[in-house]
Amino acid sequence: MFKSETNIRVRYAETDQMGYVYYGNYAAYYEVARVEALRQMGLSYKMFEDNGIMMPVLNLQCKYLKPARYDDLLTIKTEIRELPSLRLQFYHEVYNEVGVLLNQGEVTLVNIDMKTQRPCKSPAILTETLLPYFNS
Amino acid sequence: MFKSETNIRVRYAETDQMGYVYYGNYAAYYEVARVEALRQMGLSYKMFEDNGIMMPVLNLQCKYLKPARYDDLLTIKTEIRELPSLRLQFYHEVYNEVGVLLNQGEVTLVNIDMKTQRPCKSPAILTETLLPYFNS
Amino acid sequence: MFKSETNIRVRYAETDQMGYVYYGNYAAYYEVARVEALRQMGLSYKMFEDNGIMMPVLNLQCKYLKPARYDDLLTIKTEIRELPSLRLQFYHEVYNEVGVLLNQGEVTLVNIDMKTQRPCKSPAILTETLLPYFNS
Amino acid sequence: MFKSETNIRVRYAETDQMGYVYYGNYAAYYEVARVEALRQMGLSYKMFEDNGIMMPVLNLQCKYLKPARYDDLLTIKTEIRELPSLRLQFYHEVYNEVGVLLNQGEVTLVNIDMKTQRPCKSPAILTETLLPYFNS
Repeated sequence: MFKSETNIRVRYAETDQMGYVYYGNYAAYYEVARVEALRQMGLSYKMFEDNGIMMPVLNLQCKYLKPARYDDLLTIKTEIRELPSLRLQFYHEVYNEVGVLLNQGEVTLVNIDMKTQRPCKSPAILTETLLPYFNS
Repeated sequence: MFKSETNIRVRYAETDQMGYVYYGNYAAYYEVARVEALRQMGLSYKMFEDNGIMMPVLNLQCKYLKPARYDDLLTIKTEIRELPSLRLQFYHEVYNEVGVLLNQGEVTLVNIDMKTQRPCKSPAILTETLLPYFNS
Repeated sequence: MFKSETNIRVRYAETDQMGYVYYGNYAAYYEVARVEALRQMGLSYKMFEDNGIMMPVLNLQCKYLKPARYDDLLTIKTEIRELPSLRLQFYHEVYNEVGVLLNQGEVTLVNIDMKTQRPCKSPAILTETLLPYFNS
Repeated sequence: MFKSETNIRVRYAETDQMGYVYYGNYAAYYEVARVEALRQMGLSYKMFEDNGIMMPVLNLQCKYLKPARYDDLLTIKTEIRELPSLRLQFYHEVYNEVGVLLNQGEVTLVNIDMKTQRPCKSPAILTETLLPYFNS
């Protein structure tokens, strides 16, 4: 399994009038966490797009356990539990500064060849980089 | 079952560099659809908050079938399939102008008493208004 | 002078924890107002991009007079006071339902040829459509 | 004069279909820069709100010189050029990783007493903290 962690400071823009982080904003937090997970592997999502593969989201699930609030310094723990094939799945947990679990998310991406606009295999560099994490 | 429909025009702000509606923006579309569903019943979410009940989201699921694109005039079909109790669940389908289903969502809200900050029963006016749709 | 009007309902997503529309969200409201102004002329911004001209923003000014709030049905009055040349300028006023002026904005766009990535003249169809509004 | 710097990584959520950071998103970048400027003084905007003073925006100006793009690591340089009184003004410059100036912004905030909802003096702690930067 591959694991990573990243931090996000809640912006005022992301709160709503309940004083909570608006429920739709977690999707952007997960995106930051995915991109930083790749960066921690030495890869970048931008590089995939520059090489003609984009990865739109197929599926999103969020559980809202407790609200994140303005100026909270969140920790997002991210896991890839299976080697990617046509799809790539990320698991996220969002914690506040005192270690309380606020939110859980699952995001499934699909690889799309930008020329053909059709699903394609995961970029070889991604599979190769992840492989050692899945040898038991 | 209660059903309603509303339209949303995709804003440039909501696109991303794939040329798609960013995946996190559907949550705001569902919110608009929920609020308009209530308005079509003669109710308003604002009225619930003004009366001390807020309805944060507990659970969100989205399936992204096809991308919505800039300037698309979307139709969101919304269903409430069960009478609300402590929770209230909405089902959404997002269609483009030629009737293609682009996206499906489910959102579960919980009623919170703003004074006690604890879960509470659904506002009586909401249950009463929905009741006739569930008598068979 | 060309004038148009459009309505926008404030979304929960657009509020912040002050209970105001977040100050950054007016830019998206102005964008909606610009696009609807074009649509009222029988044109569309999408059409310009499909024909190879995009119109990024050069300059933005906003005055925040009074806050817009959740579920307000806003009226945005938009004016084009000069025929476009290399640039196109929009003036916006945002009113609430009882006619109180909440916000004023000015947005300057520039025409960019998407192939050369360089500034270019305003699309001929736009200039022609606007011309009658500037004959005195 | 008080000066500070902060970094922001451009999120996919913040791009639009031009492949640029959407023009409305700079307002949130300035907000992050303001909050980090305060944090570098040992203060926090959250603390002001917790003490009953909020600071809505009165005025915003942005100049868009060159586009910021996905995954750019931006540096935002922020200046406070005058001691705050009823108002507090921030100047921002946004640079990309190779030091190119992309964007300039000015934001004027007003202090509002949350109880009376009326303008009030700048929090004493803010004025005291800034004072040494304005002694010549």
